[in-house]
Amino acid sequence: MTERMKDFLGSPGTWSGFALRSAQCGFAAASVAVMASANGFSNYTAFCYLIASMGLQLLWSLGLACLDIYALRTKRDLHNPVLVSLFVVGDWVTAILSFAAACSSAGVALLFEKDVHFCRTFPQLSCGRYALSVLLAFMTWTFTATSSVSMFWVLASL
Amino acid sequence: MTERMKDFLGSPGTWSGFALRSAQCGFAAASVAVMASANGFSNYTAFCYLIASMGLQLLWSLGLACLDIYALRTKRDLHNPVLVSLFVVGDWVTAILSFAAACSSAGVALLFEKDVHFCRTFPQLSCGRYALSVLLAFMTWTFTATSSVSMFWVLASL
Repeated sequence: MTERMKDFLGSPGTWSGFALRSAQCGFAAASVAVMASANGFSNYTAFCYLIASMGLQLLWSLGLACLDIYALRTKRDLHNPVLVSLFVVGDWVTAILSFAAACSSAGVALLFEKDVHFCRTFPQLSCGRYALSVLLAFMTWTFTATSSVSMFWVLASL
Repeated sequence: MTERMKDFLGSPGTWSGFALRSAQCGFAAASVAVMASANGFSNYTAFCYLIASMGLQLLWSLGLACLDIYALRTKRDLHNPVLVSLFVVGDWVTAILSFAAACSSAGVALLFEKDVHFCRTFPQLSCGRYALSVLLAFMTWTFTATSSVSMFWVLASL
């Protein structure tokens, strides 16, 4: 492994990788918290799927953030083909699931707001929170996509 | 360029590439046709976006299918870094847009069917057609994703 490779943004076992994982955890946790605190979300499949998918993302990112911290403390090198392949597959799967959850929830939130006017008809629905949670899910996806691409790059250059 | 590279599934200017593009065109056109023939789709943003996104996919795939035919007839070589970079960017953008459209429409179709029971309450809605159109959009996305990955591979090995 060359020193150049450790400088990749989001490479495993580096501070930038740890920052990226922490951002994913933070936004995923915020998205789950906002959605779970919204009234009546549990009646809608898309919103339940958003919580499940963001929960999975949170667990995955938390695990990798802990691994990054461990590698930084013990100065271990995580650039081993088997480990990086595992990270690539996990990142791509969670990125696709997060994107699907964010898009389907965005479709439903937009429908409530603009098309069927549920937000005006049923003031007990927390439409603002649905929208905020979807926004946070898209931000989580942006960070996961960055991780996926940089992990793929690391794997390609191993 | 080596002969090995021409054998990649979906490489530009090959029969497999042309087959992949034709499949994308066919499924995108079917998805647009089914959705456009469904009653009341135009009241829902997600379904309009599905038509727009599948229309874009159709134009893009049709253009590349024509280019493949032209390259096959005149035995031209399309493996040039500038052209392939253009294909990679276009494929990734259309793949992401198609996936977003398919997911948001799936969210809305599922909501109508399971959560708010619109399909039972308003029998004039063509719920079966919405579902079929979403399914066709997901199949279009599968073919586009295959193209994107193989184009990326071709670019990486140029």
